[in-house]
Amino acid sequence: MSKPISIFDTTLRDGTQGEGISLSADDKLKIARKLDQLGVHYIEGGIPGSNGKDIEFFKRVKELNLQAKITAFGSTRRKDSLAEHDANLHRMVEAGVQAATLVGKSWDFHVHTALQTTLEENLAMIFDSIAYLKQKGLEVVFDAEHFFDGYKNNPDYALAVMRKAEEAGADWLVMCDTNGGTMPHEVFDIVSTLSGAISGSKLGIHTHNDCELAVANSISAVRAGATQIQGTMNGYGERCGNANLCSIIPNLQLKLGYDVLEADRLKQLTNTARYISEIANVHMQVNQPYVGNAAFAHKGGIHVSAILRDSRTYEHIAPELVGNRQRVLVSELAGQSNILSKAQEMGIDFDPENENTKQVIAKIKDLEHQGYQFEGADASLELLLRQANGDLKELFIFESFKMLVEKTADRPVVSEAFVKLKIDGASIYTAAEGNGPVNALDNALRKALITYYPGLKDMHLSDYKVRVLDDKDATASKVRVLIESQDFHNSWNTVGVSSNVIEASWEALVDSIRYALLGQTKREGYEEIPSAGRGLVNH
Amino acid sequence: MSKPISIFDTTLRDGTQGEGISLSADDKLKIARKLDQLGVHYIEGGIPGSNGKDIEFFKRVKELNLQAKITAFGSTRRKDSLAEHDANLHRMVEAGVQAATLVGKSWDFHVHTALQTTLEENLAMIFDSIAYLKQKGLEVVFDAEHFFDGYKNNPDYALAVMRKAEEAGADWLVMCDTNGGTMPHEVFDIVSTLSGAISGSKLGIHTHNDCELAVANSISAVRAGATQIQGTMNGYGERCGNANLCSIIPNLQLKLGYDVLEADRLKQLTNTARYISEIANVHMQVNQPYVGNAAFAHKGGIHVSAILRDSRTYEHIAPELVGNRQRVLVSELAGQSNILSKAQEMGIDFDPENENTKQVIAKIKDLEHQGYQFEGADASLELLLRQANGDLKELFIFESFKMLVEKTADRPVVSEAFVKLKIDGASIYTAAEGNGPVNALDNALRKALITYYPGLKDMHLSDYKVRVLDDKDATASKVRVLIESQDFHNSWNTVGVSSNVIEASWEALVDSIRYALLGQTKREGYEEIPSAGRGLVNH
Repeated sequence: MSKPISIFDTTLRDGTQGEGISLSADDKLKIARKLDQLGVHYIEGGIPGSNGKDIEFFKRVKELNLQAKITAFGSTRRKDSLAEHDANLHRMVEAGVQAATLVGKSWDFHVHTALQTTLEENLAMIFDSIAYLKQKGLEVVFDAEHFFDGYKNNPDYALAVMRKAEEAGADWLVMCDTNGGTMPHEVFDIVSTLSGAISGSKLGIHTHNDCELAVANSISAVRAGATQIQGTMNGYGERCGNANLCSIIPNLQLKLGYDVLEADRLKQLTNTARYISEIANVHMQVNQPYVGNAAFAHKGGIHVSAILRDSRTYEHIAPELVGNRQRVLVSELAGQSNILSKAQEMGIDFDPENENTKQVIAKIKDLEHQGYQFEGADASLELLLRQANGDLKELFIFESFKMLVEKTADRPVVSEAFVKLKIDGASIYTAAEGNGPVNALDNALRKALITYYPGLKDMHLSDYKVRVLDDKDATASKVRVLIESQDFHNSWNTVGVSSNVIEASWEALVDSIRYALLGQTKREGYEEIPSAGRGLVNH
Repeated sequence: MSKPISIFDTTLRDGTQGEGISLSADDKLKIARKLDQLGVHYIEGGIPGSNGKDIEFFKRVKELNLQAKITAFGSTRRKDSLAEHDANLHRMVEAGVQAATLVGKSWDFHVHTALQTTLEENLAMIFDSIAYLKQKGLEVVFDAEHFFDGYKNNPDYALAVMRKAEEAGADWLVMCDTNGGTMPHEVFDIVSTLSGAISGSKLGIHTHNDCELAVANSISAVRAGATQIQGTMNGYGERCGNANLCSIIPNLQLKLGYDVLEADRLKQLTNTARYISEIANVHMQVNQPYVGNAAFAHKGGIHVSAILRDSRTYEHIAPELVGNRQRVLVSELAGQSNILSKAQEMGIDFDPENENTKQVIAKIKDLEHQGYQFEGADASLELLLRQANGDLKELFIFESFKMLVEKTADRPVVSEAFVKLKIDGASIYTAAEGNGPVNALDNALRKALITYYPGLKDMHLSDYKVRVLDDKDATASKVRVLIESQDFHNSWNTVGVSSNVIEASWEALVDSIRYALLGQTKREGYEEIPSAGRGLVNH
């Protein structure tokens, strides 16, 4: 079996209905590009005209020249009016997309209760809106809201809605389980029935996870004849979320033999899911199927020894197929071998039997216990390892920093930082303002060092993340700061942990600059700077 | 249809294999009591003799006199030995439980690879172990590990295993999808086949969530004849977790009409799930089906107006059936109707036609565009609405704050804050230290206000979250701070946004305290404080 299935991603539209998910136009563009690299077929970008972000998105997404079809979402025309005069339909056309997703009612109860119109007028609203969009040259995806509830309540009317949409020229008839309450065998039966009643349009499925069955329902629909699946990455969406494409895609492709993504794209699945969770700033669920960090993690002792004999004993697929990896939890031995293999990767030579090696491994474990996380901070790890190995020259001695934030009513907040260092016996004392406390510290620290290391001007901080580690004591709890830095060639990540967000930021900042200076040498003739040899240098 | 289904909870055994889950004997006893109140039929407590916690659990659980049957888990006897001499089987008997769960191999590949014995010896191991436990008077639940993979690879052998277990007297034959890779229609077909091949024992199902199908697979098995479901609360378990009983129970009882829990027990589901997540110290997933905080939360504007007319429009069940509740979220995507219904919820009277109303809605939208998020900050929203409505008396006038963080080599970091306010014409100027800058600000602000509002001493900050909104300029980008506060009766959430993390924290802090003071009145006789009427009050 190798039936082609279209993946319709609505992370950017229905996904943003999820609690705590809010995407800027920039975020949306980044995600669209990433989805396109994964190879989804449709990317629903938003509701044109509903807000400034979506307008900006539709304008700028054209410049990306994506392979995927960009689609705009909107409702059928208002009751008792003309499609030609409908502002929403106009905006969908003006968005300049290839496809339009038009949502309409198929549950008689909703026509009466929510639309407050007649069943006949609803059919006309659907027909007119689709005909209008087709006439404007758009591919039309008709989302029949509450199709399953509608079918169970009044099958004749639900089918009449779909026949009307087909008659108006809809390319796709998508059955939505909007409230997420339908069981997989019901989905199978109802999709099979519709499949028999329709001949021109193709069928799609759109499910929600209110019964923890969105993935199963999507698969049921495909087995009954649907060839488009609407869902979101990581299952983002209102209430319990939409159907999770991160599980549906590998289930269809690896388990059921459908033709979903182009060869080799599936390996980007884990990376794509994690990238999008970063952009959306939502924690990845560690136990998320296929792409979670624990999806192929083994804890039980018996399991682990069986896995070491043959990974098929406790793994349903090879994790590499979806770009994930096997992890063995807890074992101290695993810790040491991880760290040593990491050192090797960095070209640092460690003898596992050496006392030094044991000390640095103990230190890293202790730091991790305190809340440091080196998985996302390779540069800080490398500094630790190089320091332990003795091949790191410290470039300056820290003496102190002060950071002052001052806010007076009706005036903008001011941040100032003061940094005192020693370089080759010379005390350097700098002051700087900044847009926020961390920026001020960064400015003051650079000011102190740039005279000695002019190369620093080429690097800048490119990302800054703060995570509260333990919410029991609220503002007195620990925070972890991750900083990403870049120069023309590289980017690197560093970490700091403290109960004080400023101190944690300082740690990560200092590591970022120490790492940047790893390959650099001090400027020739730095002694020429007047007061560098004696006393303070004021900047 | 009203077929009785047995719920077999293995949160305390298989659930603890999940990453980050570790339960003490006390924790296990608390959870067992709670599960018993919910009305599950079997509680698998652990592996007797595997560790001190499980030994203590089995000893102490008897004193609780639970209704549920307590069961102990163990493997078939070792190869080439006698059941009578098997230490594991002895310990299961000595645990003093009513039922034993015996796990055995049913996949020929595993017999060869993991057990490294013959297919015949594996059958003998299963027969002998079950016969031994039955002879000791225990109810025996036989867990056939990897039954589905085994059946697909060698159906005759997988069936022979089950026939042998039945012959030995097993009360239950449980089909395990140990690796979680089986599809729902395969489960249905294989369970149906086994159901036809077995006559004496009852059938059970044990699934894992590696394909996000554990709930669907459990339901498939029940529809094909299984009458026991093994799973965990909140789906805890190794890798992607076990089948989630919090979704399976309501699906079977409310959607499919099976007789699962006694009448009225289902209402304890949400509370039980959240209690167990507290004990296990694992964050509840906000979007968890049925029991999550967002399971019945509505964000979309059109959805909200329909929900207000009839909640069946966008809710698949009444949330009260599982002890959960409806929530209306406020967001940019939502329109005026969300905000008005929120105001109504808060008891604030708004006329939608009023100019004031339009202004506050425009203001909220503008703030959201700047990065404020009110769906997680109800208290800040309420302050905005009350202010717009004119029923908010401002309690103090902000003049300024200063915040100083100082770090000197080898000495702990110091945070100090200075706050200047005006109350009834009196200038109040306070200074305080803190464990971190926000804590210092909180201390200084309270110091200024507590003389006037002694009730403030009962509130404290209980959670603090920082989110970077836009990573383009790194340390100069905007941050959003969310603060959760509590007193004896309530908890409330506030928000602040700024490019400066200290200013954003200050905003959220001030809102938290303004909200706390909403119902409170100023202390009688506050004028008695010496310098309050004139000049500065120094604390």
